[in-house]
Amino acid sequence: MEGTRIPPERSEVGHSATGPDVSGRRGRPRSEEADRAILAAATELLAERGLGGMSMEEVAARAGVGKATVYRRWGSRGALALDAFLAEFSRQQPVPDTGTFHGDLLAALRGWIRSVTKTPAGRMLAGLVAEAQRDPALAAAWRERVFEPLRSSNTVLVQRAIERGEIPASTDADVVLDLLFGSAYHRLLQGHRPLTDQFARRVVNVIVAGVTGQGP
Amino acid sequence: MEGTRIPPERSEVGHSATGPDVSGRRGRPRSEEADRAILAAATELLAERGLGGMSMEEVAARAGVGKATVYRRWGSRGALALDAFLAEFSRQQPVPDTGTFHGDLLAALRGWIRSVTKTPAGRMLAGLVAEAQRDPALAAAWRERVFEPLRSSNTVLVQRAIERGEIPASTDADVVLDLLFGSAYHRLLQGHRPLTDQFARRVVNVIVAGVTGQGP
Repeated sequence: MEGTRIPPERSEVGHSATGPDVSGRRGRPRSEEADRAILAAATELLAERGLGGMSMEEVAARAGVGKATVYRRWGSRGALALDAFLAEFSRQQPVPDTGTFHGDLLAALRGWIRSVTKTPAGRMLAGLVAEAQRDPALAAAWRERVFEPLRSSNTVLVQRAIERGEIPASTDADVVLDLLFGSAYHRLLQGHRPLTDQFARRVVNVIVAGVTGQGP
Repeated sequence: MEGTRIPPERSEVGHSATGPDVSGRRGRPRSEEADRAILAAATELLAERGLGGMSMEEVAARAGVGKATVYRRWGSRGALALDAFLAEFSRQQPVPDTGTFHGDLLAALRGWIRSVTKTPAGRMLAGLVAEAQRDPALAAAWRERVFEPLRSSNTVLVQRAIERGEIPASTDADVVLDLLFGSAYHRLLQGHRPLTDQFARRVVNVIVAGVTGQGP
């Protein structure tokens, strides 16, 4: 996914209406601990075996909770997988605010590349995008819960550059972000060339020169 | 895949060593007819149901040939699927030679978008990329038989622009093609925004301005 940290409430969109424990009990609420254990177990299984190999039973067993507890918070395997991915992925992403369009795009792309090449997020991401091709409900949930929130965060990078007067106000943020992350997804999913830092620098150089050099 | 017509011999890379019928019999060799019928049946099934729903038995039945005939030419379902995709996709692609870098990139991207939005190639392509995420052998065959040949054809567009002196000789053709087709794949696979002609024009405008405006 397109990287940048997203607010905690967004990482909970997959939860059922049951919110965190607000009973006023002292100490960490038990439901939060259970949630964390469930997400960690789901992340492990997703990274090891993909969505097809992640059963709710095994998530419950690894998390040390009952299956009912898992289902109470996540109605479906798909919803749990999306939240597990988001929890794993979003905490690794930088929040670029370097002061320049070039610096922000490069930091965002480097953060994304670091996650997908150095952590289980890459396999999880490729697996979820693959599953979404055959499962329209998962595809819709993916877009709504993961893609669009992260896309909104990254749109800010383009808006800030417009506000600074670095790029034309007419710049199409979606096209910029599709060029930036689309080229990186391409290397992740096709595997034809490596996701190197040279690649990141060249991609950003072309986009920044292209957007600033086009005129309004 | 990245569009442009590829030579016929390339669309046969999935065949076994058995070449076309060269027995000197009059009329169209029967094995060529069978091949065409098999590829057409595979294309239909692939578009309707994806690779998971394409069995060699059903391909044979729809093509009106024996299962042995299918296996004689294509050793595996994956190899047949790749050739069926390539046969369907490559004949729809333009061979852009418009005289300018901008014109060539735009024609290539428009051809790709037309194929994936107006023909079964889009679903086939998304399905094969998805399958490749879980099947390393298919991923390797995909890269070797489909991706790299098409990539080579498109690299010519960048080379011609370098020869015309339109863009710096140091231009990284892979980065240009990853930006061009990667952004389009992104919309195909994520489904977050439509693959419109405005999108194609904006993507090409940024890339061309970015590559020509960067200096050597």
